[in-house]
Amino acid sequence: MNSAMYRSLRNVQRLNGKLLALQRSIVIKNHSPAIGAILTSSRMASSESYRIERDTFGELKVPSDKYYGAQTVRSTMNFKIGGVSERMPIQVIKAFGILKRAAAEVNKDYGLDPKVADAIVKAADETGSGTQTNMNVNEVISNRAIEIMGGKLGSKDPVHPNDHVNKSQSSNDTFPTAMHISAAMEVHNVLLPGLQTLHDALAAKSAEFKDIIKIGRTHTQDAVPLSLGQEFSGYVQQVKYSIERVKAAMPRVYELAAGGTAVGTGLNTRIGFAEKVAEKVSALTGLPFVTAANKFEALAAHDALVELSGALNTVSCSMMKIANDVRFLGSGPRSGLGELILPENEPGSSIMPGKVNPTQCEAMTMVAAQVMGNHVAVTIGGSNGHFELNVFKPMMIKNVLNSARLLGDASVSFTKNCVAGIQANTERINKLMNESLMLVTALNPHIGYDKAATIAKTAHKEGSTLKATAVKLGYLTEEQFDQWVKPHEMLGPK
Amino acid sequence: MNSAMYRSLRNVQRLNGKLLALQRSIVIKNHSPAIGAILTSSRMASSESYRIERDTFGELKVPSDKYYGAQTVRSTMNFKIGGVSERMPIQVIKAFGILKRAAAEVNKDYGLDPKVADAIVKAADETGSGTQTNMNVNEVISNRAIEIMGGKLGSKDPVHPNDHVNKSQSSNDTFPTAMHISAAMEVHNVLLPGLQTLHDALAAKSAEFKDIIKIGRTHTQDAVPLSLGQEFSGYVQQVKYSIERVKAAMPRVYELAAGGTAVGTGLNTRIGFAEKVAEKVSALTGLPFVTAANKFEALAAHDALVELSGALNTVSCSMMKIANDVRFLGSGPRSGLGELILPENEPGSSIMPGKVNPTQCEAMTMVAAQVMGNHVAVTIGGSNGHFELNVFKPMMIKNVLNSARLLGDASVSFTKNCVAGIQANTERINKLMNESLMLVTALNPHIGYDKAATIAKTAHKEGSTLKATAVKLGYLTEEQFDQWVKPHEMLGPK
Amino acid sequence: MNSAMYRSLRNVQRLNGKLLALQRSIVIKNHSPAIGAILTSSRMASSESYRIERDTFGELKVPSDKYYGAQTVRSTMNFKIGGVSERMPIQVIKAFGILKRAAAEVNKDYGLDPKVADAIVKAADETGSGTQTNMNVNEVISNRAIEIMGGKLGSKDPVHPNDHVNKSQSSNDTFPTAMHISAAMEVHNVLLPGLQTLHDALAAKSAEFKDIIKIGRTHTQDAVPLSLGQEFSGYVQQVKYSIERVKAAMPRVYELAAGGTAVGTGLNTRIGFAEKVAEKVSALTGLPFVTAANKFEALAAHDALVELSGALNTVSCSMMKIANDVRFLGSGPRSGLGELILPENEPGSSIMPGKVNPTQCEAMTMVAAQVMGNHVAVTIGGSNGHFELNVFKPMMIKNVLNSARLLGDASVSFTKNCVAGIQANTERINKLMNESLMLVTALNPHIGYDKAATIAKTAHKEGSTLKATAVKLGYLTEEQFDQWVKPHEMLGPK
Amino acid sequence: MNSAMYRSLRNVQRLNGKLLALQRSIVIKNHSPAIGAILTSSRMASSESYRIERDTFGELKVPSDKYYGAQTVRSTMNFKIGGVSERMPIQVIKAFGILKRAAAEVNKDYGLDPKVADAIVKAADETGSGTQTNMNVNEVISNRAIEIMGGKLGSKDPVHPNDHVNKSQSSNDTFPTAMHISAAMEVHNVLLPGLQTLHDALAAKSAEFKDIIKIGRTHTQDAVPLSLGQEFSGYVQQVKYSIERVKAAMPRVYELAAGGTAVGTGLNTRIGFAEKVAEKVSALTGLPFVTAANKFEALAAHDALVELSGALNTVSCSMMKIANDVRFLGSGPRSGLGELILPENEPGSSIMPGKVNPTQCEAMTMVAAQVMGNHVAVTIGGSNGHFELNVFKPMMIKNVLNSARLLGDASVSFTKNCVAGIQANTERINKLMNESLMLVTALNPHIGYDKAATIAKTAHKEGSTLKATAVKLGYLTEEQFDQWVKPHEMLGPK
Repeated sequence: MNSAMYRSLRNVQRLNGKLLALQRSIVIKNHSPAIGAILTSSRMASSESYRIERDTFGELKVPSDKYYGAQTVRSTMNFKIGGVSERMPIQVIKAFGILKRAAAEVNKDYGLDPKVADAIVKAADETGSGTQTNMNVNEVISNRAIEIMGGKLGSKDPVHPNDHVNKSQSSNDTFPTAMHISAAMEVHNVLLPGLQTLHDALAAKSAEFKDIIKIGRTHTQDAVPLSLGQEFSGYVQQVKYSIERVKAAMPRVYELAAGGTAVGTGLNTRIGFAEKVAEKVSALTGLPFVTAANKFEALAAHDALVELSGALNTVSCSMMKIANDVRFLGSGPRSGLGELILPENEPGSSIMPGKVNPTQCEAMTMVAAQVMGNHVAVTIGGSNGHFELNVFKPMMIKNVLNSARLLGDASVSFTKNCVAGIQANTERINKLMNESLMLVTALNPHIGYDKAATIAKTAHKEGSTLKATAVKLGYLTEEQFDQWVKPHEMLGPK
Repeated sequence: MNSAMYRSLRNVQRLNGKLLALQRSIVIKNHSPAIGAILTSSRMASSESYRIERDTFGELKVPSDKYYGAQTVRSTMNFKIGGVSERMPIQVIKAFGILKRAAAEVNKDYGLDPKVADAIVKAADETGSGTQTNMNVNEVISNRAIEIMGGKLGSKDPVHPNDHVNKSQSSNDTFPTAMHISAAMEVHNVLLPGLQTLHDALAAKSAEFKDIIKIGRTHTQDAVPLSLGQEFSGYVQQVKYSIERVKAAMPRVYELAAGGTAVGTGLNTRIGFAEKVAEKVSALTGLPFVTAANKFEALAAHDALVELSGALNTVSCSMMKIANDVRFLGSGPRSGLGELILPENEPGSSIMPGKVNPTQCEAMTMVAAQVMGNHVAVTIGGSNGHFELNVFKPMMIKNVLNSARLLGDASVSFTKNCVAGIQANTERINKLMNESLMLVTALNPHIGYDKAATIAKTAHKEGSTLKATAVKLGYLTEEQFDQWVKPHEMLGPK
Repeated sequence: MNSAMYRSLRNVQRLNGKLLALQRSIVIKNHSPAIGAILTSSRMASSESYRIERDTFGELKVPSDKYYGAQTVRSTMNFKIGGVSERMPIQVIKAFGILKRAAAEVNKDYGLDPKVADAIVKAADETGSGTQTNMNVNEVISNRAIEIMGGKLGSKDPVHPNDHVNKSQSSNDTFPTAMHISAAMEVHNVLLPGLQTLHDALAAKSAEFKDIIKIGRTHTQDAVPLSLGQEFSGYVQQVKYSIERVKAAMPRVYELAAGGTAVGTGLNTRIGFAEKVAEKVSALTGLPFVTAANKFEALAAHDALVELSGALNTVSCSMMKIANDVRFLGSGPRSGLGELILPENEPGSSIMPGKVNPTQCEAMTMVAAQVMGNHVAVTIGGSNGHFELNVFKPMMIKNVLNSARLLGDASVSFTKNCVAGIQANTERINKLMNESLMLVTALNPHIGYDKAATIAKTAHKEGSTLKATAVKLGYLTEEQFDQWVKPHEMLGPK
Repeated sequence: MNSAMYRSLRNVQRLNGKLLALQRSIVIKNHSPAIGAILTSSRMASSESYRIERDTFGELKVPSDKYYGAQTVRSTMNFKIGGVSERMPIQVIKAFGILKRAAAEVNKDYGLDPKVADAIVKAADETGSGTQTNMNVNEVISNRAIEIMGGKLGSKDPVHPNDHVNKSQSSNDTFPTAMHISAAMEVHNVLLPGLQTLHDALAAKSAEFKDIIKIGRTHTQDAVPLSLGQEFSGYVQQVKYSIERVKAAMPRVYELAAGGTAVGTGLNTRIGFAEKVAEKVSALTGLPFVTAANKFEALAAHDALVELSGALNTVSCSMMKIANDVRFLGSGPRSGLGELILPENEPGSSIMPGKVNPTQCEAMTMVAAQVMGNHVAVTIGGSNGHFELNVFKPMMIKNVLNSARLLGDASVSFTKNCVAGIQANTERINKLMNESLMLVTALNPHIGYDKAATIAKTAHKEGSTLKATAVKLGYLTEEQFDQWVKPHEMLGPK
């Protein structure tokens, strides 16, 4: 690559370096103590040591021990929005590390100086660990690689942030690539294991409760019976499908934009670069990443993340249902439904031992509401791309990662601190079952509809049980009642 | 099935008949002129002819020529919400007809009087056509079947709405079944063909425009070039994936709740009923319906519809992006971007012939916004099931069907009235391309970075073209410029 | 107004007539049987009678007895999206009638031929009644006015749709004006009366229940007592504030865009026209409409409707809370909370008289979910205006009107069929109250914390009441318990 | 207050302490380095110094130098959801400090030991500064007050976290109170000043641009002219109304739940306590807080925050519109609309000086999308309260504070780095204006409609200007054109 080409590439990089600036905007700041140091240092004495860096706007002071450079400092001056909570998610930084390493390895095949490439790989690996990173990945990796090779921070020599670290790349294709890598990793590392944990615990409970017959409830009103195990089997199915739904959204998340460069054409890359980078990323992560079928779509639209967010939104509906059921079935201790006994995790009232606030359910329903809100933000961002670029990237990935993390973490917390310890209050369940008027239907074949109806109406009016009323009315004996009314024979087709 | 069992079944049906009442609430009214007639008749003279029907609340007047009965009349008295626009979607009525026919055929196998079964099948077929239906499908089908068999409307003899038409069914499992049937049919009959139509038209345009090189735009700012065909290929990919996304959501929509009856246990059905009904429905519709893996989940959660709605939401993001691009690229006639010439469908200003309002794009973006809103309603409904039943069914299916229909119809309208007629304004495209400053990067290898930069800066300052400026500055000849600056070599990797 | 000016105006009207075409798109079709007739007639024999009208695209057949004209016919050919349910809301048509009348009256002051003006006023009044309208209000009003004056339909003489009916107006300012008029009228005619009805019924219940002391529930768990009247007073407050919230959003809805014409400048109007039209509309409707403070904002943004929709969204949260509480407090008959007895509106199970499905609550919660979804659609539309015009108008007003109507209607239905008939199940309430363990705290001052705790723990363990346990443990007498444990002294500050 | 009463109160506090546990769940962790220290310390050597605290579940190790206690440690063990980004917002901690101080001052009036009260006030003041706080405000304040009074951390003597710091309070009323205080303060300290800043800058630009006449755009198509100042006046109006909208939502946010204690009754408070606390909070903050009109509503519903969020949602629509217009009007440098010149904040391409990516607009639109998503989360949380308590509190306030902060900060950033530096590209504006075909309408009165139309059609066909075409066609002279076509006379009513 001759120097003219370098300048040409550099030009493109600068051009697209604007996205990076944008990305710093809302969510972005940085993620290492580095920026903190900058902000702090402005209040510090002049004894602080700086190096001077330049961009086209002039000179800037960069703390001499920081890996980041002028672009990062400039960005922190222009975007003061949202405070420390609006940082670039660490997962994106890690994904950038993976991508930068993969690109360096491929670039080495295409002629990048092996020493430079190896230093970038090593620096990117550290970046990937998230321990010494900041927002401007290129600046950080180049400076760390310079350090590895014995150079001077800020000198851009022998490892240039644009020419070497960012070789054959553009913000326009690397950021979407990092979005997909980070989303896929969060799904695989946090969300799916969390859902599986919850699934298994619910399945165990469903098996444990298979012989406990209880009153069903439709329209929040008493209905015909089912087993508690059957009720829980519905939750198991919801979580099983949650996992399937998330997986069904992944094929399009596994597509990587890398190789599209500035507008999707792949200008300034070599034939095969895109495929090789995807292969490397796949090898580094163990996930089936491939190069995007159409790079124009991959830069200008982020439908794949809207789709994934939609899957998370559906998962959140399942979670809301399950958590609501658990807290209502566990309501009490005296004036609720009281069919489930939830584990006590925090000190309850010492004077009223039965009151257990369903805080894990509450956390789960809050997570569900948050995910539904995040999904709308992702949707709006996803619908507003223009021409060759969607510029809502940072906001979108922040919300997707937040949703995946919240659902994954909450699944584990809910499982460990609630589901695993749920006990059936069989005494209460049996009591409600026996008091139920719904069972009268089982008497129809034996005493006829009219007598059965009379029993039910009398029992409802007098507040007594069906059995007591039936016997009192002289329609049958206690033994006959027990023989004819068998809830466990009402649990399936004949 | 003896009479006691019949009464037992009837009891369950009545119990669950409440859902039907609910369903009438917001969206439901009816869908035939029938209800209109009722409402009208209240203002009419007493000469109107009625038959008297009874429910447990007393007598009700039913217009003597109507198929519907007491429950329908009662419902219209209790739910006056939203006016005529809040009817049960016709697709749900048709789906009910299919389900009722399938159930009658299966029930015939299990012993239902063949004459009754055949009459139900015939009546349900008519219902399925949507021509003579009302909300209460059972009442309508039984009365129409009675009519077919020569009986008297309202007599419930020889075809009883509950005992025969609704045999082995409950509102709790039939309504979700009709939801899935109607959603799947709308997807297959309207949405997917619509998307395919749009896909093909965009693909044709992408091919047609493959050699037209234009300026790219990122951050709504000028960027490196791509071909107009490449730009359209991004839209093609979005629609292709829209189709894939919708299809990926279907496996869980193909699962039918039929056979779960009141709470999911399948009480009062026969073993095999659920599977056979799904087979019949599949045969009647040509779609791969199967019985739901878990009936408790199928009644208590409607995650499958939330998932489908999520796919439609993603499709709407694609549509918003495409329609926005088309209207901005077609903006003008003089003061816009002007790269596309949109077909004129309505009279434009006769005095200003170039002004074509992008009304099809506007319709598409309105549809997209509506689908995003519908999705939130579906999500909230889907998350709020309790215990053995989710009672947001009518609201959910109304929104899902509306979204599918709007996206399908709008795709066809947008294709026919806009995409198919789009022409490239090649003169304008070339002008912008030639005026662009981005192409200066191609000169770097030949005259060096500094001279190239000087050309760009001078051209920007003086508002002239790169070529004119370069020649004027004496850095190269017109011929050299044309030889070195070749946008068509910037469209892909090397 | 000379002929040149007329042509100039006509030009502007034609220019902006495109909005009308747009408006027909998704939601708009029409609202009279007229369009139905068109659609039908295409399948009818050629014996049908037509008149020929022309637009700049050529000739069109218009059914000879219809008031609408060429533009309407053209529109129905270009926008086949969503079917009959996607009509322009009738409220918008009525609002157009009011606006057209007001404009004609003001135009008369400014020189419009009084005979023409009067005919427009008369025709607009009929339009306002919604009985003979179609989408293209101008065409309909002009033709009806022509008829009134003895002219020939379609002749545009002596009343021209653009020159006379639309004088000093543009689609760009009349449609937003009709949006605000229709929204304000729906709020005043349907929503606020509905909310007031609900408020009054809840307030009556709060008073009725003021002496019924019951267990409180926080975290869905038993808590310290309050009166049922106090619990209902919370609902009363929510509805009271619902009314205040809606009213707080109205000042900006009362602002009318009329007089802004094409882009907000008021080109082709006379000074004072805007103010006079607002005055007329105010007089015709009895609502405090004023001319918009800034016409550019009034055309290019519809924040006022987003704001109103936000108020409706908040109302829907209140409704969801109230309806959820009522259905859970009314759950049963045996296995629920059972504190409220809800009125039975539909036949329940004759064999199980206590089961009353809370269908009114279910309708209300469906309405709430729909309103929340509508709000997102309105928000997305509202945020996507560009330059001098927001083109999501029809979609936005459709959703706002739907939300207002649904909430208003549902409030009345919920009040009449549910709230008004709610009874307290005092036996159940007292039983839960007496069984509660929360009351033990009242014993602390008398027997000390340790003994009180022992009582509670023992009672919870043994499933007995506090009183029985306390007496059994020998800590106090039954009389002392009744004297010390007085829930009615726990209902307020000391 | 005797010891029995203390125990009773303590009981209630413990009971409701569960909310605090909940609050820690999703958003809550803590906000000081304290928790970080805990987490870290688990990986540290055993030389770490602890004190032992107990709750009813047993002993817990608390780092000996931390103010927080057992409940906080317990909470961090049970809720590991979302990582460090899901902390309780600092604004809520500060609000708690204000509330705790106010309560201590009122409690002093009602008999709390002045020395204890004063120590609480002092400790709460420090808390309010946010410098030494953690999640469990009571534990922290009591320990800091103990320290002030020379006691031993963790001893609960002489300042007990429940009996003294939390006197007359419950989590159920204090948390909503802190929500309202923090929301109101964020609105007043960040959001309203930010909006005012933006308003003023836009108003200055509107004045600056008042004489620059430009082409209007409706349907993204050329329309009649307006001044750039008029266009900006629409934005000014939007921001002016944004401020009004937020203010209109505040009356209900100023209502404080304090004094409602556990379920809204005010059990265990003294008459007047609620009013006095509100007065104190008002005095401490300078904002017009009052005690809530109905405490049941104030605990069980958070409609006031949904309403405020709705106002922020409307503001976000305004911001999206303005930022979109600015970036499209500033698009270019060569192939966009190019009417505005946006300030260059970051290094642009040195070789293409005119390309300025609208990163501030992009940040603003991302903020708008996030606020819309947050609003849906708040809405869902707000609609899901049950009985006497809404338990979505932490999620709701987190989103409201995030929205207020983002909009306030982004307004300032957008103003400072974009709006303030916007310049009109008058050359480009004039060029588009002169090229426009819309102006032909001004010729109608002079040469007649037909000749005017011919000029426009010819000019469109030949791509020439109106003036050149008119002269070429011989219909008028250049002087006549300039005399008759005066855009500045098209800017308002006559």
